Amino acid sequence: MNYPKSLQNLIDSFTILPGVGEKAAERHALFLLDASKEDINRFAQSLLDVKEKVHHCKECGNLTEEDLCDICDNPNRDHSTICVVQSSKDILAMEKSGEFNGVYFVLNGVISPSKGIMPEDLGIDRLIEKAQTAHEIILATSTTQDGDLTAMYLGKILKEECPNAVVSRIARGLPTGGSLDYADEITLSHALSDRKQM
Amino acid sequence: MNYPKSLQNLIDSFTILPGVGEKAAERHALFLLDASKEDINRFAQSLLDVKEKVHHCKECGNLTEEDLCDICDNPNRDHSTICVVQSSKDILAMEKSGEFNGVYFVLNGVISPSKGIMPEDLGIDRLIEKAQTAHEIILATSTTQDGDLTAMYLGKILKEECPNAVVSRIARGLPTGGSLDYADEITLSHALSDRKQM
Repeated sequence: MNYPKSLQNLIDSFTILPGVGEKAAERHALFLLDASKEDINRFAQSLLDVKEKVHHCKECGNLTEEDLCDICDNPNRDHSTICVVQSSKDILAMEKSGEFNGVYFVLNGVISPSKGIMPEDLGIDRLIEKAQTAHEIILATSTTQDGDLTAMYLGKILKEECPNAVVSRIARGLPTGGSLDYADEITLSHALSDRKQM
Repeated sequence: MNYPKSLQNLIDSFTILPGVGEKAAERHALFLLDASKEDINRFAQSLLDVKEKVHHCKECGNLTEEDLCDICDNPNRDHSTICVVQSSKDILAMEKSGEFNGVYFVLNGVISPSKGIMPEDLGIDRLIEKAQTAHEIILATSTTQDGDLTAMYLGKILKEECPNAVVSRIARGLPTGGSLDYADEITLSHALSDRKQM
């Protein structure tokens, strides 16, 4: 015995999602079987809408339904400070901190020789062009191996191409609430060497 | 800054699924942003199809797109042996074992006073009617508190209403690959008291 075809199709659709296995897909599909028609229609419509309407901001690469994203379109933001991040998700995290009033540039990836992602895949030409009028460029890629490699590469290029701008990297150290005996040695060595006088 | 509206709608749709939180919903939605148009359309269509086409078999309550499910519609199955399960998922598990050639009755739930699910919510009238011509009724609800309660209740009623049928409960004991020192005391006490002579 198999599930009815349309139910099996829905299960198969769920399994294309990252981290969703056969069992979870089955649970989701069976749950939706009992969901209201309204919820189902909204789900289906939002899937179609996302593909139809959402694209990258032509200025910074952030996700938007317009030509420019909310941030690039906001005259109150400091357009001469550019924070370079890996993905739109990172922008949400940064905005929550409330510490940054500049604009962003989304790489939509990091240089990763192991995955075959090279500098030319990340729209770095557009970043250099945008950075010509900037006062500061903050490199906020992740502090992973690929993120660090990308920041190092960008730092080198941007210092050459935009000699008038300050190029900086986000600080590394112990996270808030971090306990010394759980911190790895690289984090601790950064926390020590980048210590701040009180 | 927020996500574009259609993307946020998709994230919201994912969070109605059981066990999917804000973060996972975000990951799924962002993943689908980059999925092929074909995959998206299939996903949306399968959502609509499931709601439209799938319903319960009028004979046993299993999921089907037809009037009768594959099993009830199969003349080679033994229609005088009825296995009572909680959900269609359980039928799939039973069928994989290949041990059962009868038909099923899906309760689509268990009696659960704590959740307010009472016997009359489970279509037990239909089960009694169907059981009139049966030789054996196997109660295969889960061995949880609610599952056991339901089996006990059904056992009592079915023995009264169908005096000619054998009413049985699936065996309890140590699962295959189970190690004694990890088994709980109730399982062990069942495994001991229901021991089989070799």
